[in-house]
Amino acid sequence: MLIKDHRKRVLDNAEKIGCSTVVSFNPENTFYLTGFWGESVGICSGESTKIITPALETDRAEEAALSCEVISAERGKDMLLRVIDELAGKSVCTDSTDFHTNKMMAEKLGERNVIVNNKPFTMSRIIKDPNEQENISKSAKIIDRLFNLSTEQIRENKTEIELMALLVSETYLLGGTLVSYKSTRYPFIIAGGPNAAFPHSEITTRPFSREDTVIVDLVVQYRGYVADATRTFVIGHATDEIKQVYECVKDAQQTGLDSLRSAPDFGHVDLACRNLVINRGYGSKFVHSTGHGIGLEVHELPWISKTGKEKVKPGMCITIEPGVYINGRFGVRIEDSVIVKTANDKDDSPRIRNTVANLNSFPKDLICLG
Amino acid sequence: MLIKDHRKRVLDNAEKIGCSTVVSFNPENTFYLTGFWGESVGICSGESTKIITPALETDRAEEAALSCEVISAERGKDMLLRVIDELAGKSVCTDSTDFHTNKMMAEKLGERNVIVNNKPFTMSRIIKDPNEQENISKSAKIIDRLFNLSTEQIRENKTEIELMALLVSETYLLGGTLVSYKSTRYPFIIAGGPNAAFPHSEITTRPFSREDTVIVDLVVQYRGYVADATRTFVIGHATDEIKQVYECVKDAQQTGLDSLRSAPDFGHVDLACRNLVINRGYGSKFVHSTGHGIGLEVHELPWISKTGKEKVKPGMCITIEPGVYINGRFGVRIEDSVIVKTANDKDDSPRIRNTVANLNSFPKDLICLG
Repeated sequence: MLIKDHRKRVLDNAEKIGCSTVVSFNPENTFYLTGFWGESVGICSGESTKIITPALETDRAEEAALSCEVISAERGKDMLLRVIDELAGKSVCTDSTDFHTNKMMAEKLGERNVIVNNKPFTMSRIIKDPNEQENISKSAKIIDRLFNLSTEQIRENKTEIELMALLVSETYLLGGTLVSYKSTRYPFIIAGGPNAAFPHSEITTRPFSREDTVIVDLVVQYRGYVADATRTFVIGHATDEIKQVYECVKDAQQTGLDSLRSAPDFGHVDLACRNLVINRGYGSKFVHSTGHGIGLEVHELPWISKTGKEKVKPGMCITIEPGVYINGRFGVRIEDSVIVKTANDKDDSPRIRNTVANLNSFPKDLICLG
Repeated sequence: MLIKDHRKRVLDNAEKIGCSTVVSFNPENTFYLTGFWGESVGICSGESTKIITPALETDRAEEAALSCEVISAERGKDMLLRVIDELAGKSVCTDSTDFHTNKMMAEKLGERNVIVNNKPFTMSRIIKDPNEQENISKSAKIIDRLFNLSTEQIRENKTEIELMALLVSETYLLGGTLVSYKSTRYPFIIAGGPNAAFPHSEITTRPFSREDTVIVDLVVQYRGYVADATRTFVIGHATDEIKQVYECVKDAQQTGLDSLRSAPDFGHVDLACRNLVINRGYGSKFVHSTGHGIGLEVHELPWISKTGKEKVKPGMCITIEPGVYINGRFGVRIEDSVIVKTANDKDDSPRIRNTVANLNSFPKDLICLG
């Protein structure tokens, strides 16, 4: 990791809002600044980078952190007071969203010396350097191998949870890690038949059955960096309705990918993808946004939604993932992780701004299994 | 789940701080009030319970939530404004720790109508009802089966990640789910040799080797409820030093468990356990607290640390987990999940306040493997 460049980017962004020092409470931001992922607070200024950890994390932080001073403190209030000590007299930008933490920082350091703003971090992280792109690409390759394994395993009467158990195990054996958020109980979405009509379905013990669509939505992390991709398979035989919905989603996904080459901003990418779904008569069944940035988090800037104003820029890593959900019966979603790259010289049309490197090469034609 | 009782407890606790309505942003609190675990906000008053979800979660919430109105709103600011609409004119207690959320609620509802305080939730959840105890107990039983599997699998040259892959897969097949926190990259701790000297070691590809201690620390969730237990195995042959440390930790853990019967508060439980380790000369190597509450979160009230003031009460579910860590060489930790129960009539000593039901029955004698 080019840790110096990360620090410079974040500090430059912080300076724009009048801060000389940044303090990170979110582990992904601390990792971005230090190389250490754990229970800790990161402090970075032009002079130095420090990590404050509870005693039980100190040795591990010493091993992992790159050119940082590691300071040990008691968990909880003591740790926060130690952080505040380090910040005395500085103009501070923090990613903390914790109400009590921010209140205490404002009280001790002076309200005008503390700016609560995650943007210097998230805006720095929005463009990925080559090393970050490579890690995301490796995560996507693990996902492709899991899709291959899925086609071997999915068949009538196999259950969602059985497939899940196999895929999580394989993820670890392939060198990946799993990402979980508090609002979801499973790291992957595997949803067959009527469950596939829930965009965020939870895994069940339901066996796959004939004419099911099976959504396999996988998120894998490699060295901290996440890729996210989805394929939808069919058990046995696809009805005409399923074929129609599948073609709609597949075409919409391709349209979304294509639009990245010329769209001025992500609102236009969402629109291109969504309009195709609307024109085929399924607009009201596409109940989420078209995609999102990926990196140290599964969902990060840029947002690819109706209101997305962010410009499409080389170095961004994102997903394109339209879906159509027919309540009570079935659903289809197709998603790739991609990197936006600089346009080739050959692309001499003035409308073409970028090229797109698709990190998932697993086929997107309709596959009937079992 | 006795959802009515949960609501009554939380509302009673909220009333004590002058609030008629509670609003939960943390998924575990929303689950406690509604039975739905997902991306949503819960609102509960004497009159009704409501869930506000983004569109993509609405159908799932309708299915899972118990006697609730489910309201759909656009993710982000729209959702928050919809929540605020529902709260107009009420005196509100919230678990939200999000700075911007709380700022906007205070602005729109009036600062004195919004109390930011998680305690009405956490204090309600501290005593588990029989159904909650049963779910935690089932999680602990899954962990015991994983320990059995570990003894079959752990041997020289097997790697940490290989064991991990097998155990996560088995967890799902046994009906459990995994819990991940943002500051840890793996749901379990499996740490051999020098890695076992890090209390929060990350999983590596290091093969187990002769005279390693191997810490296996497992957290499993069943129907939302968590158990947490640890065993430490030895590869091949235990040196005298390892035996000595192992006996120390095992005795300390038993002392901690025994102290639950008569200790007035959790500070005394920590002290009983810690003093044994200090007396054997390893006090400085026991770098964390003695345990913590378990329930909808891995770590919740009560805290079993030096400063723990909470009284030991029947219905509490907790862990007792002393550890000794010899930097660079090895570590030992032993942990059970237990329920504090009312003392039997036979216990006629006035000093005995409680009995303890140990949820983990996997043996704690030193086991050499492979």
